[in-house]
Amino acid sequence: MYSGYITVEQSAGRSLFYLLQEAPEEAQPAPLVLWLNGGPGCSSIAYGASEELGAFRIKPRGAGLFLNEYRWNKVANILFLDSPAGVGFSYTNTTSDLYTSGDNRTAHDSYSFLAEWFEKFPHYKYRDFYIAGESYAGHYVPELSQLIHRKNKGVNKPIINIKGFMVGNGLIDDYHDHRGKFQFWWNHGLVSDDTYRLLNDSCLHDSTVHPSPACAAALNVYKGEHGNIDLYSIYTPTCNETAASRRRPNGRYPWMTGSYDPCTERYSKAYYNRQDVQRALHANVTGAINYTWATCSNTINRNWRDAPSSMLPIYKELIGAGLRIWVFSGDTDAVVPLTATRYSIGALGLPTTISWHPWYDVQEVGGWSQVYKGLTLVTVRGAGHEVPLHRPRQALIMFQHFLKGMPMPG
Amino acid sequence: MYSGYITVEQSAGRSLFYLLQEAPEEAQPAPLVLWLNGGPGCSSIAYGASEELGAFRIKPRGAGLFLNEYRWNKVANILFLDSPAGVGFSYTNTTSDLYTSGDNRTAHDSYSFLAEWFEKFPHYKYRDFYIAGESYAGHYVPELSQLIHRKNKGVNKPIINIKGFMVGNGLIDDYHDHRGKFQFWWNHGLVSDDTYRLLNDSCLHDSTVHPSPACAAALNVYKGEHGNIDLYSIYTPTCNETAASRRRPNGRYPWMTGSYDPCTERYSKAYYNRQDVQRALHANVTGAINYTWATCSNTINRNWRDAPSSMLPIYKELIGAGLRIWVFSGDTDAVVPLTATRYSIGALGLPTTISWHPWYDVQEVGGWSQVYKGLTLVTVRGAGHEVPLHRPRQALIMFQHFLKGMPMPG
Repeated sequence: MYSGYITVEQSAGRSLFYLLQEAPEEAQPAPLVLWLNGGPGCSSIAYGASEELGAFRIKPRGAGLFLNEYRWNKVANILFLDSPAGVGFSYTNTTSDLYTSGDNRTAHDSYSFLAEWFEKFPHYKYRDFYIAGESYAGHYVPELSQLIHRKNKGVNKPIINIKGFMVGNGLIDDYHDHRGKFQFWWNHGLVSDDTYRLLNDSCLHDSTVHPSPACAAALNVYKGEHGNIDLYSIYTPTCNETAASRRRPNGRYPWMTGSYDPCTERYSKAYYNRQDVQRALHANVTGAINYTWATCSNTINRNWRDAPSSMLPIYKELIGAGLRIWVFSGDTDAVVPLTATRYSIGALGLPTTISWHPWYDVQEVGGWSQVYKGLTLVTVRGAGHEVPLHRPRQALIMFQHFLKGMPMPG
Repeated sequence: MYSGYITVEQSAGRSLFYLLQEAPEEAQPAPLVLWLNGGPGCSSIAYGASEELGAFRIKPRGAGLFLNEYRWNKVANILFLDSPAGVGFSYTNTTSDLYTSGDNRTAHDSYSFLAEWFEKFPHYKYRDFYIAGESYAGHYVPELSQLIHRKNKGVNKPIINIKGFMVGNGLIDDYHDHRGKFQFWWNHGLVSDDTYRLLNDSCLHDSTVHPSPACAAALNVYKGEHGNIDLYSIYTPTCNETAASRRRPNGRYPWMTGSYDPCTERYSKAYYNRQDVQRALHANVTGAINYTWATCSNTINRNWRDAPSSMLPIYKELIGAGLRIWVFSGDTDAVVPLTATRYSIGALGLPTTISWHPWYDVQEVGGWSQVYKGLTLVTVRGAGHEVPLHRPRQALIMFQHFLKGMPMPG
């Protein structure tokens, strides 16, 4: 495990933090996969590495770590990046940067990071390279992929040997995402008939990141209607004060699916604010983070600038370039729901190679999949927004098939 | 607990089996509630009484019973009826009856049953009486309610003192049910874009019970796409040969929600075929059931005759008559899904009294509810087709509020 900083902009003092979890010796040379979380403003160390696909998960109250049985670094070298500067352990010495983040700079800083990182880890040069991520990384992943692809053009043997990308419960296209999102809410009973109509009238043509006042008002009505549920996983319990008291003697929750702990998000906050942990990770070495470490930066999130309304043109360009592109969706997420993804992918109008079909994990349906010419869509049954958190085994199976470029097991 | 037969048609030898589970002394005089299961062809003893709201549930392999903590007879006297003749322990001495069952005779036989039953249990005469049921009982419940209501007309103090009814995941109106059902499937990823279109083209104006050949063909394509999942509860594991082997050492299933056993349906078949059990229940006393007892009769199901395409006219009549009407929906059922129910209720065009809102069980959202003038709609979050099976505590809370005529707890 390696971790540390790479400065991406000397003059501004923007420095990005990474964590590398390598595959075991016997699996090498395995591909290198960059994992990005969204927000915008959320830490890949807090989410991806610490509660989803990373090698370790964090114990209650940040007391320590335990091994994740379904860690993705069983089959690939996983590089987690806190991006952009101001997120997680990544920082900037220019405060105004926090108020001017956007898609474009995020992509370019990430590219600078990678160029430098490969110099530090030269044995990964020319290695098969993939980018994966979820949620708002539905923007970061194709944008960075496009930048790498374009920079690689005409280069005979590119150092950043990008082969493809994978996006889970990601933003793809504002119009189609909105349409599908509202329909998903109505179909799952989260919204009234009246508010469903209001949302379609007020938000359909809005930007997801920059909604109009009318759309924001409609979303506020919706908020009152869905009540206190975890929108990122609509059938699991929420983390609240009585969550602990509702634990059964055997340590499980009466409402819970599998062994999911709804308070898991709190633990990384406790853990990564420990000074011994920061020292061990070579994090915050300059003391630039003189504030409480947070899983997500509200400042970054609230001041986000450029956010293109559609990734579909990039999808088209990179499908044309022959990159391997997988889109997946945990089907019990109400934030970027399956229906949104279906509409957005549908808008690409790609021909079908393998029709919609269930995929299996032993005898259980893990979800459904459709293979298009140039893109594979995979759903994960019963998984929320963070697919590897709620369905860790199924997520690893999916990741393995992605790396092999094989359709999901029928 | 009482059980036995009432002959509803002497000449044909049609005899209906019932099971009464009374409320405890301290809860009396509690209302009397008739519970009906659908199919058509399925036994209320097998489903309602033995795996849903009944006082007892059946142990694996039919080895015995255990108490249901959330039994509905804590607050009401529950009368389970196997209906029509040919279903469960109910029988007919006229074989042709099995091939000519339909809604109309089912309602009239059930009425005859009740008239006679109240003579046997005279202390229930004039008692507040409700009918509840699920699935195809979405037909039986309003039809029988209507019949009772009409027979009561002009009677000063009716013996069958019907106050209202409650239907869960029930058929209401074929057109709106179809529309919502297909949309629910698409939103949950059970069906491809192409088949979704095909279903809308082929089935939308069909009868649910008697689909056209084109619609049957489309449904067959869908069947291939959804794969081996429990359509009645789309996020729980299926019962299959390895289900037992997949149990964890602590007796729980890796995939399962709460303590639901996906093989539960099998146990009633083992239990109710035991001769000692039949003797104890006064079931099959004449030996008319000289075949293996089944949870559902395929013969009845496949030969069903009259099935009106809409219950909405009955809803209108009985809302007008002031009956208390509740419709509920477990929101993870793909057989008669929430979306179907929303479209069907929407078609009534009733004014709203209390807007769509979450209802709470302690701090967790139990589901959502909307109160219309004359009808209350309640969803149960994470529950399948058999709501009291998957969310027993939430189902009992709902039942208690129904009996009190109170909106769900906000």
